[in-house]
Parts: sequence; structure tokens; C-alpha cells
Amino acid sequence: MSDTVKQVVYSEFGDPRQVLRVEDVARVALSEGQARADVLRAPINPSDLIQIAGNYGVRPPLPAIAGNEGIGRITEVSGEARGLQVGQLVLLPAGAGTWRSEVVASAGAFVAMPEGDVDQLSMMMVNPATAQLLLTDFVDLSEGDWIIQSAANSAVGTYVVQLAKAMGVKTVSVVRRESAVQGLLDHGGDVVLVDGPDLVKRVIQATNRAKIKLALDAVAGETFGRLGECLEIGRTLVNYGAMSNEPASMQAGAMIFRDVRIRGFWLVNWFERASKEERMGVHAALTKAVATGALHAPIDRVFALEDISEAARYTWAGERTGKVLLAPNGI
Amino acid sequence: MSDTVKQVVYSEFGDPRQVLRVEDVARVALSEGQARADVLRAPINPSDLIQIAGNYGVRPPLPAIAGNEGIGRITEVSGEARGLQVGQLVLLPAGAGTWRSEVVASAGAFVAMPEGDVDQLSMMMVNPATAQLLLTDFVDLSEGDWIIQSAANSAVGTYVVQLAKAMGVKTVSVVRRESAVQGLLDHGGDVVLVDGPDLVKRVIQATNRAKIKLALDAVAGETFGRLGECLEIGRTLVNYGAMSNEPASMQAGAMIFRDVRIRGFWLVNWFERASKEERMGVHAALTKAVATGALHAPIDRVFALEDISEAARYTWAGERTGKVLLAPNGI
Repeated sequence: MSDTVKQVVYSEFGDPRQVLRVEDVARVALSEGQARADVLRAPINPSDLIQIAGNYGVRPPLPAIAGNEGIGRITEVSGEARGLQVGQLVLLPAGAGTWRSEVVASAGAFVAMPEGDVDQLSMMMVNPATAQLLLTDFVDLSEGDWIIQSAANSAVGTYVVQLAKAMGVKTVSVVRRESAVQGLLDHGGDVVLVDGPDLVKRVIQATNRAKIKLALDAVAGETFGRLGECLEIGRTLVNYGAMSNEPASMQAGAMIFRDVRIRGFWLVNWFERASKEERMGVHAALTKAVATGALHAPIDRVFALEDISEAARYTWAGERTGKVLLAPNGI
Repeated sequence: MSDTVKQVVYSEFGDPRQVLRVEDVARVALSEGQARADVLRAPINPSDLIQIAGNYGVRPPLPAIAGNEGIGRITEVSGEARGLQVGQLVLLPAGAGTWRSEVVASAGAFVAMPEGDVDQLSMMMVNPATAQLLLTDFVDLSEGDWIIQSAANSAVGTYVVQLAKAMGVKTVSVVRRESAVQGLLDHGGDVVLVDGPDLVKRVIQATNRAKIKLALDAVAGETFGRLGECLEIGRTLVNYGAMSNEPASMQAGAMIFRDVRIRGFWLVNWFERASKEERMGVHAALTKAVATGALHAPIDRVFALEDISEAARYTWAGERTGKVLLAPNGI
């Protein structure tokens, strides 16, 4: 065991390729009730990069350690930290700064996990919870109902397809390139279309004029407006991202005459408002689904912590076929 | 009394300056239970022009007589049409095709009105009802609350200022030119600002960081997004028009992090959903307010029916200082 810990930090908000640096700091001793875990995998979520750029809804105090979720293995437990064993697989505490070789925290902040696929388990807090809440928090969906979503080949999008399938809800998945179509069909997508100016017409055709009850958008730009126009009158469009880097745009007529109701979704906000029981309920259901493999998202690449600049660039470039993970203790 | 009736008709949807024509048709005899009214004044609402262009939520069968509201005076009553006297001032039936010299309809479709300012009374169905419902149908406003609106010097905007004032609600009115500021201050506007990229900052300054509970937009484009960013977190932005002819545009971050809730408002939709009691309640309150002069909107120009092309052009040009009316029986 080395005496130093590697961590990805930033001292100013800005382009993640520029402001992130990897530094070595001295390992700290545990206090009573604390545990130490090696970080096995931590995902790079687009929201992490937005946070580092300073464009997120909350700004951490600087300097900050980057990363908001991950999976680790307990390496040391203080005398008083009951319930955790050395060697136990754990979810790292949410928002702990997970892009580092180890995390020290109160033992109670780690969540013990069964052995399993550490890639899949590393990203089970943020994206599956987002997918689950997008499907349940805005509209009551019943078996046979239709939804539409953009950025459908993202991790959240892939989870949405799988969770919808399990609910008997049919999905129109909209992607930005042809090469992403087959993967979503393989995951159980009912209709998968490449975005374009005539999207609305093609959705009507492909679904045989289905009444679509919910639209989920993470692209913004004109895609946002097109999804809104695909909805049945009086239905809800939820935006949770802007992968196009464009403002969300919609013809006023869609809002006025089609009565599109528009909402935003932010997981942080949901967690703040939810009761402890609601939070536990969401996590319990998802933990099981991820642990058993019922919920899984494709992984594109795994980077070493030292390659964070390249990893950040690669994550944002948009040509990925799956999630980008960091492996702070070796790939 | 001539034997012909003048009316503004269109046989195809398109630019109102091109597709509208004035034609003379033979006067029809009354059936039992019908009444005839000379049209004194009928407004040109922007929504009329959108309807003629074919971009409205519903399309009338063609050919169609244009115009959706107005004030008239009864000139003839059939034997069975009780309750109406020749000479009575009446609101014309909603959606009757009011851009014509006379309207024939069931006596019960006319609403008797006290004598008063026919200019103001001619436009009391569409715009005051819109203003009233924008203020009451989405958010519960209490005395001292703040709202913000764009296109504030429109008829709807002017009514919003007056109705808000009567409720004790404070208004930020956003306009597109300096020359519109004083009129709104005269109508009782609390803060009146000219739109621009730094609008959000100026609203914060001018209201001393007031928590704004409702935003009303009829401009779309970037103004739409700016109004959303002026709102307190979790509040509602209602769009009811697109005077900029641009799509409504908003940064995804405003929806996600500021939890802006976006809705559209269409009076036709409201009337279809409302109970008869709700409809009567809205009209009764507004009729009284318009008849007594408590609610009034500026009039810019009154055109003869023959000048409809120029009147349509002038209405849409956006340099108006008030409403444009038609006077089918002389100005």
C-alpha cells in the first residue's frame, strides 16, 4: 500500500480538458467510525463535466475532487465501524469525489453490495435512478402506453428502454446516428429512429399514429421541439440535458394548440424533495435490477485516472457507443 | 338599407394581405327566432391573422368569413326572437365571422350590452378573457406577488397590468421599444423594461430581487427563455403567442436547475374544457369591468372594411400603439 492517494481535482471552473489535474496527496488515518475503500470504477457522467465547467445547478466549493458515484472495495475499517468487512464491495457515498484511488468516509455512508459486474455497479446511482424517475415521476404510465425519448443510446436512455419494457410500456427511441440503432433494438426498443427535420412524420408512421404520453429529452435544440410535437395533446415533455449544446427550441403553436406541458428533471432536486422512504425505495429496486443484470448499459471505454483529460474529451465528443469509466486502481 | 351585405372572406389559407377579399352578397331573410345586427366595430386580433394564414389550432371550412368578435346593434328581430329590441347594443356571437356589415344569428347568440364605448366593447371577448385566465388559471396569486410579461403593450398585456393592479399583484412589463414604456406606466405598470440580452439582470435590479411567481410570454424567441430565467425556482411560464415569429427558445439549464414549468394557453381550449358556469363567470366579471371603463386598451386605428389588406398589414407590422379595429358600417 503506497502512502499517497491519487485524485482528480480542479481549482477553477472551466473546460474539463484544461482545469482537471491529477495530484498525489498523503493518505489520512481513519477516525473512529470511518472506513476506507479502494475505488474500483467511477463513471464520467455528462453532468460531472457540466459541474466542472461551472454550469451546474450547484457549484462545489473549490478546490474540489471530481466525480459523484462509483464502486469500491473496503480496505480498512476503524474499530467502531461495525457492519463493514475488509474486502466488502460497496457503493461509494454519493457526491464523495469519486475520481480518486481511495475514499475515506463514515462507514454508514458506504452501501454494501453483493459481488457482481463492477462496471455496471459503478454507475447505478445516477443514471438508473434518473431513468426510473423520468418514467414514474411525471405521468402515470400503463401497459401498452407509448413514450418517446431522445439521446436514447445514452446510459439513461438504455435504462429507460429496459425499465419501460419491464413495465409493458412501448418506446420510440431517437438517436443521432444510424450506428446506434441496432444496439437499442437489441435492448428491447420498439421503434428506433434517427433524428431529422421530418422526425414527427416518421414517428406517426412507425407507431401507426400511437398516442404518445411522455417525451424525454436530453438533446435540447430542435430535437426538443420535435419530441413535443410527437406527443398526444395535453401531454408532458421532460428535459434533463442538452447534449446538442443548443438552447431548447419549440414552435409556440405546439405549446398553445397542442397544450404541451414542459418540465425539467434534476436528480439532485428530486433527492432533496423526496422522503427517506422514497429514496430508499428507488435505490432498493434499482440495486437489485443492476445486481441481477436485468438493468445494464453498454460500456465504451475504461480509462486510467492519469488519462482524465483524454477521458473527458472522449466523453463529450458524442461518438461513444456507451459509458466511459475511470479505473483509479488499474483497469 | 341596401340589399347587399359586405363581408371579408378567404377561400384559401395564406398571407392575409393576399387571400382576404371583400365581397357583396345578397341579404338573407330572417328565420324564426333569428335577429340581425349591424356590425359597428370588430377588432383584428393577431390570432385572426394566424387563423387566416392556416397556422391556427383549428381551421375553419373554406370559404370562411373572417373575424371572431365584435359589437353590433340590432336592426331587425323575427317574431319569435324575444328579449331583443331593435336598437339594442349587442356582443356578436363568438366566432361568427364578424368582419362584415351585418350578422344574422339566433337571437340567443347575441349578448345584450349597456350603451358605452363601442371601441372598447368590441374587443371584450377574446383579449380580456385571455388576460383574466392567464392570471388565474395557472398559479394562485396573492396581494404583493410579482409577475412578469412580454408583449406588455398589447391589448392582452394592457389588460394584464390593469387586472393585476386590481388584485394587488405587482407587474414587470417587458416591451420591445422605448416608446411603449410610458403608456404602461400610465396604465399602472410597476416596472416597465425594454427587452434585451441583459433583461434578467435588469429585472433583478428593478424589482430588488423579487421572487416572481408567473411569467406570461407572447413573443417567443429568446424572450421566452429570458422570462423563464426571471422566475423564482419551480414557477410557471405560460406562452400564448409568438409575435417575434421565432420558435420559443430556452437554455436547458433553466428548465433543469431552475425547475421552470412551461405551459401553453389557448382560449379556445379553455372554453371547451370550462363548465358553463365558469364561462359565464369570466364574462360577467369582464363585461362589467369593460362597460364601466375599469378595463380598457388603447386603440391605434380604425379601418373601413374595404381597407382590410392594409389593416392586416398594419396589424402585423408591430409598430402599433394599440388595437386595430374594423368599422364595417362607417368609422
